[in-house]
Amino acid sequence: MNAPTQTSHLMPELHLREVPDSLIEGLKARFGVNCSTAMAVRTQHGRDESSFDAPPPSAVVFAESTQDVADAVKLASEHSVPVIPFGVGSSLEGHLLAVQGGISIDVSRMNRVLSVNADDLTVTVQPGVTRKQLNDEIKSTGLFFPIDPGADASIGGMTATRASGTNAVRYGTMRENVLALEVVTAGGDVIRTGTRAKKSSAGYDLTRLMVGSEGTLGVVTEVTLRIYPLPEAVSAAICSFPSIEAAVRTTIETIQLGVPIARVELIDVNTVRMVNTYAKLNLREEPMLLMEFHGSPAGVKEQAETVQELASGHGGNAFEWASTPEERTRLWTARHNAYFAAVQSRPGCRVISTDTCVPISRLADCLLDSVAEADASGIPYFLVGHVGDGNFHFGYLLDPNIPEERVKAEELNHSLVSRALALEGTCTGEHGVGLHKMDFLVTEAGVGAIDMMRTIKRALDPKNIMNPGKIFAL
Amino acid sequence: MNAPTQTSHLMPELHLREVPDSLIEGLKARFGVNCSTAMAVRTQHGRDESSFDAPPPSAVVFAESTQDVADAVKLASEHSVPVIPFGVGSSLEGHLLAVQGGISIDVSRMNRVLSVNADDLTVTVQPGVTRKQLNDEIKSTGLFFPIDPGADASIGGMTATRASGTNAVRYGTMRENVLALEVVTAGGDVIRTGTRAKKSSAGYDLTRLMVGSEGTLGVVTEVTLRIYPLPEAVSAAICSFPSIEAAVRTTIETIQLGVPIARVELIDVNTVRMVNTYAKLNLREEPMLLMEFHGSPAGVKEQAETVQELASGHGGNAFEWASTPEERTRLWTARHNAYFAAVQSRPGCRVISTDTCVPISRLADCLLDSVAEADASGIPYFLVGHVGDGNFHFGYLLDPNIPEERVKAEELNHSLVSRALALEGTCTGEHGVGLHKMDFLVTEAGVGAIDMMRTIKRALDPKNIMNPGKIFAL
Repeated sequence: MNAPTQTSHLMPELHLREVPDSLIEGLKARFGVNCSTAMAVRTQHGRDESSFDAPPPSAVVFAESTQDVADAVKLASEHSVPVIPFGVGSSLEGHLLAVQGGISIDVSRMNRVLSVNADDLTVTVQPGVTRKQLNDEIKSTGLFFPIDPGADASIGGMTATRASGTNAVRYGTMRENVLALEVVTAGGDVIRTGTRAKKSSAGYDLTRLMVGSEGTLGVVTEVTLRIYPLPEAVSAAICSFPSIEAAVRTTIETIQLGVPIARVELIDVNTVRMVNTYAKLNLREEPMLLMEFHGSPAGVKEQAETVQELASGHGGNAFEWASTPEERTRLWTARHNAYFAAVQSRPGCRVISTDTCVPISRLADCLLDSVAEADASGIPYFLVGHVGDGNFHFGYLLDPNIPEERVKAEELNHSLVSRALALEGTCTGEHGVGLHKMDFLVTEAGVGAIDMMRTIKRALDPKNIMNPGKIFAL
Repeated sequence: MNAPTQTSHLMPELHLREVPDSLIEGLKARFGVNCSTAMAVRTQHGRDESSFDAPPPSAVVFAESTQDVADAVKLASEHSVPVIPFGVGSSLEGHLLAVQGGISIDVSRMNRVLSVNADDLTVTVQPGVTRKQLNDEIKSTGLFFPIDPGADASIGGMTATRASGTNAVRYGTMRENVLALEVVTAGGDVIRTGTRAKKSSAGYDLTRLMVGSEGTLGVVTEVTLRIYPLPEAVSAAICSFPSIEAAVRTTIETIQLGVPIARVELIDVNTVRMVNTYAKLNLREEPMLLMEFHGSPAGVKEQAETVQELASGHGGNAFEWASTPEERTRLWTARHNAYFAAVQSRPGCRVISTDTCVPISRLADCLLDSVAEADASGIPYFLVGHVGDGNFHFGYLLDPNIPEERVKAEELNHSLVSRALALEGTCTGEHGVGLHKMDFLVTEAGVGAIDMMRTIKRALDPKNIMNPGKIFAL
């Protein structure tokens, strides 16, 4: 087999725009050492956790304030040069790649928790605060921020991609939990959207227009979030099932009954095996649900009994329970290690992660057909899912030296997304569109809705400088 | 005292545009008897529950399908004539008034429940379905749609105003419960937003841009909603308090503790008196909370005990409980009759209703100062509130023959809204902006955010024909 010209990376379509020296000089004059053109810095800011590659941005501005962001955007706007906001770089679909050139605005130094309003169950943070940092800083209040996308992502990035994760089945996604924003617009103006009131009918919902807009409409510089009382009681359990279908049916019935389960994660048998090897566990090598219940002691007990009964109706094996934080951590090890265990199971591999979400009644159909296809493909994979929301991820483990594997994996993903759309689902439950899902979005949303998105984009960013080339082509 | 030239109604600023005969002829040719120019029909469609008056629309089209709506909008667009969607006419802030002339599109005949997906806890309806009709039609599934704004509003209208009401503290508002929409755009095109998947990161959140846009960006022709399992147990209670402050403090602590209370409504002593007279009840004449708890029998008991303890800490009197539907209906009579009881208490009066919402910790401050001002004004009023969300309504009862009362009431409202905004709240929790809150919205959102709303409006409706003159001036 000939060595492929392009080994491990998919090259997105590039339309590089000129970044004039005068802009770089202007940025250096304004930001001094906080504007870097060092190749290592640029390279680090020109990629994310996707397997795409593109030339790096021409410069990176380390913003330390809203004013910094506004000034950087204004300078870029004067030169019609793209700006790409950067948090911790954990996005998955190519969101951070400078496919039209431009500069990166790194907001990771804007990492202060600005105010904690424990009495109102709200908190206001700068965009560079990560979710773990936030939870550390508010721990003493007895409150917590539930959204957990896996990575220790920045709140700004989570806002931009409308992130969710394991707790969303109970607490909602960033859509439900962002109350208000400060945003630097494409013109470099600073606007505020929303208030700290829990609800409002005051005009267009700019907050939710910004949430999930992937940096294409503005740079988020402040986020007000809902936070929640730490539950009085927390109980976690794992349960093995004779088949994925049995695990999924249990989940579907749990949701349909209205059990307020806080987490319900599917781990397929491949993943269990990988985790056993990686973390030296001896979990039963069967599909597994990891569950967590939040509430009063009596409430947690009641929820758990209900789900246990549903599980045993589907051949679920004895629950293993954990009520102390240490025991819970141990149980959740399997889920938290899934990605690393998978990567380690095929040394040198790259991962392509899928991310569909379907109405809960369609979950078994969507999952089982996709598992059958993945099994037939011969490509190693793992499967995990926030199945209570109908959301799941295949991770295809590719040998970068075998380009056919990428082709096959993309075919599997295409088939999976098409199936999800046919079942009234979405092409991305939580990762966002980025570069990777642009075609799927057209299929999902239809030309009319995409045209409406384009019209909004053109109106709010007439020079097309805000993270251009993402979500849809203009 | 001289008779005022304008007695009972506030006249909004008018910028009437020409409605050419050729448009009316075109509509008659297309819609036959479903296009009416009868004055009685036009008059009925040119007002809502606000106390504003404007000349009626030039014609009313009774749409029976999405195609009807699209064709009516296209014809109007060709002539640059405004279109105003009409459901049941229960909006409160002048949303339906033809302040720039135009035609009304009545969608009340589009009143079919299109599909009930009980397994997914979703339902898809036409916009003319009312919330009570929806709940009647899905009763047999064991599911219900919780949003209850008081009036038996249409789902289309509730979508347009981002309605909420008594159950929102537990189940959220239309913002959280609309999953997907079909919308006729200003150009007469039909687009779809969202899917039936519970969550998605697929592009701009057009669904939530449309929710609350008050007909200014498009006409909603189909709505997919979340529905919920009827709770296993429901228990309602009333509790009287020595002061409004005591009732509000009890509410604040309930929310801060994370008790998942389903309803918590404040009724002030004025309202209790009015309801006692109107409905021949003998409720204790003190401020009162009406509460409802949903859950398992044990969960409901536990919630109720917690709240009872909090209430007694604030001098709350013995709870009166109701667990059967009949008893619950009796208890809720006080709340449901509040408006009619108030109107009857001052024969011939008109009501100006306020609608602010503040972060829960600010609720006592906002409410108590506003009560003091209302008491000092001498204007009769009633006060009810969805206090669990920090949202409440004063209803000022005006003698239409005393114009000074309207001036005073508007001053009270102005003072109330200013107070709410200073306390980080919103000028409208659930009624919308319409005509009445346009100035307040500018104060709340700031010029930058309003400009962004305007830019979106101009881009999506370049001829400014979709319910023009509402939310903000262009």
